[in-house]
Amino acid sequence: MGYGFSMSKVLQSQVRRVMILAQANIEKKGHGPFAAFIARGSEVIAKGTNRVVATCDPTAHAEVVAIRAAARKLGTHELHGCTLISSCEPCPMCLAAAYWARIEHIVFCASRADACAAGFDDDFIYQQMPLPFSERSIAFTRLLPELAQLPFRAWLDRSDKVPY
Amino acid sequence: MGYGFSMSKVLQSQVRRVMILAQANIEKKGHGPFAAFIARGSEVIAKGTNRVVATCDPTAHAEVVAIRAAARKLGTHELHGCTLISSCEPCPMCLAAAYWARIEHIVFCASRADACAAGFDDDFIYQQMPLPFSERSIAFTRLLPELAQLPFRAWLDRSDKVPY
Repeated sequence: MGYGFSMSKVLQSQVRRVMILAQANIEKKGHGPFAAFIARGSEVIAKGTNRVVATCDPTAHAEVVAIRAAARKLGTHELHGCTLISSCEPCPMCLAAAYWARIEHIVFCASRADACAAGFDDDFIYQQMPLPFSERSIAFTRLLPELAQLPFRAWLDRSDKVPY
Repeated sequence: MGYGFSMSKVLQSQVRRVMILAQANIEKKGHGPFAAFIARGSEVIAKGTNRVVATCDPTAHAEVVAIRAAARKLGTHELHGCTLISSCEPCPMCLAAAYWARIEHIVFCASRADACAAGFDDDFIYQQMPLPFSERSIAFTRLLPELAQLPFRAWLDRSDKVPY
């Protein structure tokens, strides 16, 4: 990214803040050592921390929480021009969420290897992603492929659909 | 999966139902052509439909909605022994969510190629996953790696943490 000196300083400051938030987050019972911000320019518009165990929500990673909060705040499902600042490289769920949200830039501090060393499955799940169904640790079964087109045909026929 | 004849019949019936739900879902404004169930044995314990646009939530794919609902219902972040039945092969976000939720089996009808043909980015995002940072369509910047261990060290030091 072609950021100038002052934007680099802003991003460094945001990373320091997100790391402090990630470290503080574990003081709350059932919260993991992760935090994330969504920023537009130099303004942080939403924050998230990991609360998977505390809220019985396996999808409540810091990045997903921050993306949902930012989208709700802006009243749109797309975060064009926004930056995701995360305490750790996003896992595949959070990375794909960033793609769906049209995030422009991801800034992170710890790596998936750091997360793995702390006991988290990020790297394992990255390794599973490109595998054929038969080699994954989750079993896969495709059924009734002759029905596959029904929802999509109906969708494509709708003139008032909102693509995303 | 070593399912007997009667379980196969149950799964086929669930796939038919999930396809009907996916097709019906597009009648609601801002809802996409996708639906998913979480089942334990022959019992469907939670349902989800795509509501990305309607709820301003880029993560509100049918599978994520169903996983969140099932976990909330069971009062746990882990869905051991559960099956995810989806109208379409899960995208990388939903697949990774299934891994984090400890889903045992994924049953689906349409493929990522079918979703792609209907204009959805599932296949594109699968292709992005294994790429090095520099080759992805989202820009990546790693900053202040010297701070990376702070949250993880604090986490590993906590005796009352709940790993997930």
